[in-house]
Amino acid sequence: MSEIICTVDVVLLTLLDNRLHVALLKRDHAPFAGVLALPGGYIHAEQDADTRDAAMRTLREKTGIASPYLEQLATFAGPGRDPRGWSISVAYYALVPSALIDRAAHPEVALIAVDELKGLPFDHRQIVDAALQRVRNKSSYSSLPVHLCGDTFTLPQLQGIYETILGEAINKVSFRRKIDELDILEAVAGQMETGKAHRPAQLYRLKKHFRQHLALTDRGLNSTA
Amino acid sequence: MSEIICTVDVVLLTLLDNRLHVALLKRDHAPFAGVLALPGGYIHAEQDADTRDAAMRTLREKTGIASPYLEQLATFAGPGRDPRGWSISVAYYALVPSALIDRAAHPEVALIAVDELKGLPFDHRQIVDAALQRVRNKSSYSSLPVHLCGDTFTLPQLQGIYETILGEAINKVSFRRKIDELDILEAVAGQMETGKAHRPAQLYRLKKHFRQHLALTDRGLNSTA
Repeated sequence: MSEIICTVDVVLLTLLDNRLHVALLKRDHAPFAGVLALPGGYIHAEQDADTRDAAMRTLREKTGIASPYLEQLATFAGPGRDPRGWSISVAYYALVPSALIDRAAHPEVALIAVDELKGLPFDHRQIVDAALQRVRNKSSYSSLPVHLCGDTFTLPQLQGIYETILGEAINKVSFRRKIDELDILEAVAGQMETGKAHRPAQLYRLKKHFRQHLALTDRGLNSTA
Repeated sequence: MSEIICTVDVVLLTLLDNRLHVALLKRDHAPFAGVLALPGGYIHAEQDADTRDAAMRTLREKTGIASPYLEQLATFAGPGRDPRGWSISVAYYALVPSALIDRAAHPEVALIAVDELKGLPFDHRQIVDAALQRVRNKSSYSSLPVHLCGDTFTLPQLQGIYETILGEAINKVSFRRKIDELDILEAVAGQMETGKAHRPAQLYRLKKHFRQHLALTDRGLNSTA
C-alpha cells in the first residue's frame, strides 16, 4: 500500500459589507509558498479524534478561531491535486460573524470576497465552489445563515443576511412566520437597536441548542407557501 | 506523519419485495473475518484516479456490479473504527434495480433488509444509517428513486417506489405533475405492461442524461403544493 497524504481543509465564510468572504492564509512552505490558500493541514493521527477534530485544530492553530458551527463538506482526492503525491482532503466549512475573526486578530488571515477569488492553489477553488453551493442550497431551508450573525441581531438584519446568501428578496411576512416555526431565536430582554431612522427593533440571539445544530424547514424560507 | 489507513466503503441499496435492502459481503480476512460487511477496500494510489474511482473499482471487484449512479456520502474517520489503526473511509452510496444484482449473480453478495440489519462490523451501521437518511431526504425533492427501477417501468410503479422510500402515500396528480416537470422520462414506444386487472399502462425509461445525474424539484415530490 503506497502512502497517501491525508489532510483537512476548511472553508471559513463570513459576511463583510453584505458580501460573502472566505478566509485565506498565505502559505509558509512549498508547494505554493506565498500563495493565499484555504487553512488546512495534515491529519495528526496521534492527536486528532477524527477529521472534524483535525479541522477544528487546524482552524484554531492557523486562524485563532473556534467556529461553533463546522460541517463536513466533501472529500477531494486523487494523484493530481497536490504535487507531493496522491492526496485526500476532507473538506469542512464554517460560518462565523466577522466580529469573531476581528477578535481573533490573526495577522495572517486575509478575507477575500468570494466573487473576487483568483489563483487559488491545489483544487481549493473547487472546494470553495462546493462550499458556496452547499451554503446557498442549505440556507433556503434551514437556520444556517444565523451563524453569520453576531451575538445579537434584529429580524430585519437576519432577513438581509438570508437575502444576501440566496441572492433574492424575501417576503417579510412569510420569512418571519418560518423563522418563528424554526423556534431557534430568543428575545434579548430590554435591548433594542437604536440610532436608526426606523423605530427600535427587538434584538434576538440564537438559542443555545442551535449553535451547533441546524433547524430545518419543510418548505423554502424564500417561498411564500 | 504516522500512516493512516485509507479505504472506501459502498452502501449499495436496492428494492426487494417493496423493501430497501443493502448488499453485504462476508469478510475474507481479519478483522471481522466471516462477518457480513459493506463492500469496501483500500484505496490503490497507483491505480485509482480518485475516491469515486476507488469505490467503483471496489464495487466491481467485490460484487460484479457497475452502478450508473454512485454518490459520495461522507467520510468516516478516527482511531477507533478499525482495529488496525487510525483510518479514513470515504463512503459512497449507490442505488440499483435488483435485476442488476441478479444479473451479476455474485455468489458472495447477501441482500439484507435495512430494518433487519444487525451486528455490522466497524462503523458500518453508522454509514448505512447515514446513507438511508440521505436517500430518504434526497428522494423527496429529486429523481434519485428512479435508479431503483428496472430499465422500463410504469408511472404507478415509480410512484410506489417513491412511497416505499418516503414511507408515506403520495397524491397521484401532483406526483405526476412533478415527474413531468423533472422531464427525466421518455415513453417507450409500443410497449405496455400486460396481464394486470387494470388497463395497460405506458412504459417509460430514464433519459440517458439522468442515469448519472439527478434532477431536482423546488418543492417536495410528496407535497401537493
